[in-house]
Amino acid sequence: MAQTTPNHTQTVSGWAAHDSSGKITPYVFKRRENGPNDVTIEILYCGICHTDLHHVRNDWGITMYPVVPGHEITGVVTKVGTNVTRFKTGDRVGVGCLAASCLECEFCKSSQENYCDQIQFTYNGIFWDGSITYGGYSRMLVADQRYVVRVPENLPMDAVAPMLCAGITVYSPMKDTKMLESPGKKLGIIGLGGLGHVAVKFAKAFGLHVTIISTSPSKEKEAKERLGADHFIVSTDPKQMQAGKRSLDFLLDTVSANHSLGHYLELLKVNGTMVIVGAPEKPMELPSFPLIFGKRTVKGSMTGGMNETQEMMDVCGKHNITCDIEVVKPDQINEALERLANNDVRYRFVIDIAGQSSNL
Amino acid sequence: MAQTTPNHTQTVSGWAAHDSSGKITPYVFKRRENGPNDVTIEILYCGICHTDLHHVRNDWGITMYPVVPGHEITGVVTKVGTNVTRFKTGDRVGVGCLAASCLECEFCKSSQENYCDQIQFTYNGIFWDGSITYGGYSRMLVADQRYVVRVPENLPMDAVAPMLCAGITVYSPMKDTKMLESPGKKLGIIGLGGLGHVAVKFAKAFGLHVTIISTSPSKEKEAKERLGADHFIVSTDPKQMQAGKRSLDFLLDTVSANHSLGHYLELLKVNGTMVIVGAPEKPMELPSFPLIFGKRTVKGSMTGGMNETQEMMDVCGKHNITCDIEVVKPDQINEALERLANNDVRYRFVIDIAGQSSNL
Repeated sequence: MAQTTPNHTQTVSGWAAHDSSGKITPYVFKRRENGPNDVTIEILYCGICHTDLHHVRNDWGITMYPVVPGHEITGVVTKVGTNVTRFKTGDRVGVGCLAASCLECEFCKSSQENYCDQIQFTYNGIFWDGSITYGGYSRMLVADQRYVVRVPENLPMDAVAPMLCAGITVYSPMKDTKMLESPGKKLGIIGLGGLGHVAVKFAKAFGLHVTIISTSPSKEKEAKERLGADHFIVSTDPKQMQAGKRSLDFLLDTVSANHSLGHYLELLKVNGTMVIVGAPEKPMELPSFPLIFGKRTVKGSMTGGMNETQEMMDVCGKHNITCDIEVVKPDQINEALERLANNDVRYRFVIDIAGQSSNL
Repeated sequence: MAQTTPNHTQTVSGWAAHDSSGKITPYVFKRRENGPNDVTIEILYCGICHTDLHHVRNDWGITMYPVVPGHEITGVVTKVGTNVTRFKTGDRVGVGCLAASCLECEFCKSSQENYCDQIQFTYNGIFWDGSITYGGYSRMLVADQRYVVRVPENLPMDAVAPMLCAGITVYSPMKDTKMLESPGKKLGIIGLGGLGHVAVKFAKAFGLHVTIISTSPSKEKEAKERLGADHFIVSTDPKQMQAGKRSLDFLLDTVSANHSLGHYLELLKVNGTMVIVGAPEKPMELPSFPLIFGKRTVKGSMTGGMNETQEMMDVCGKHNITCDIEVVKPDQINEALERLANNDVRYRFVIDIAGQSSNL
């Protein structure tokens, strides 16, 4: 086995993929003892992110098997280290994509840990002690307090879990590009999936005019009536795309399938900004004409820093924003991953790790 | 012939391409009478832009033959209309890419005419009277005063001509992205050609640290010793590219050949900005990982507005910035276009339309 767990003594039950078939099976492994800066968390729920699918199947060629996925984790603190001041036993907390960062670079110092070039992820990373990190498809996690956030009391632990990745992934660029300070401005969201539907909720909470751009005409009713989107464009309909030209201030591209950016860019006004948060395997096609003729911007963004993640959580608490989820049992993970690969989920699967949901 | 020149009465000698062979021959055509808002200009010099090459060969599939290229025009005013207040006979002036715009949209009102969606170009456009526009490969031009700028007295009319396109094409995004307010910051310029070498001059005038990124190791000496660049990276050398990772605040991509953006983006610091001013025929490849992991921005820009073009001219006058040119006679245009296609020019050809240069 590829794992190296020096001096790790705590035995944990979890679920792992062992090869590029991506099949998940129960897996017992070791975690480190709770150190002075650590909190130990009993995991209640863990969301299933599209990134998990890429990792279990080794789509990006970087998977270290066995891989225990999961970076949308909620749970309860069961132990705190001697230096831990921010949490106590019994606290409701969440852990997202980040497990460690250098703490010394300009990004760590400004709580943009997500852009530290020594960043270590919650799973499939190499921790400082040389061990491979294992994620939230497991019953217990030891995490440095820096990478742990508080979950507001009014939010359910299952539906809030995906906010640790899907939520911050869209919140961070929406804040960074000043969308959240632009009530009345027009935002187009490309793709109505796990990321997209959360982005609609943030956008409406901050007063934006929201257009959903999707290949699926069947999503229009849902988008408008239930999620409150203002407009819907079927991206495969040239007439609708033509009618939308130069109409949007912002675009948020949540699509992780391979695609070309050209005809979406045309929807932006001059000087408009498109944010890319999906990670297609192949390079996207970027034609120069719609970019230069409209002085348009394409900007990338990857999750968010820890202060910002706490801020996002607090915003969710204030506006009662959570993810729309389907809860599954651990023995349904494979089925859920298969359905996720086919875009058959509204809008995020969450694994009931601790068996708390009674209606399964 | 495809031209429609309703009521056009002035006979002009010029040079045109008649089919996608791109071969240029002498061509006599008509221009409109000098209207109340117009100035008539005796053309002295006209630069040869890479866009001319695309147009004469119909690379973009939009050429209306016969096409009289040329949008880097300098000359002397010979007539002014009754409403013209900004120019008088004898003034030294320049005309760039723009022939007309709607005058009513937000962009026209803020002198960002280049982003008006009714924009008409100096050649291969359709003017308001239905005529096809003809450019500066000709002895005389009639232009609306709005699209005419003053040439500072200290600048030579041949070497300043390319600033009307090459100059403003790099100046505008350098200003827009605040490069010109960032002395000491690090700018990488991809491609050391007509656009790139002018960008070096602006960058050094405003105190930036300049790195040239080029496929041609032979350009290093020239870039550093004559143009004053601070650093040089050979883009085909993986070691040099690796050493340059996360080192630059800005990138200016002047390459109009097809290319991928991925390995250039890696040179940018987190939150760095890459400006695209070239117009490759095929879509550029934009891999998502370097974009999202570095929160990087790719932004397009196309020429500049008229107030900004005048401002750029005045900056050139103040800092004595012009283009490095090779002057050719009109009967050498075909040879010059051929050499331009092979990147064999330092750094811009300028046609001596009026036969003023004695050293040819």
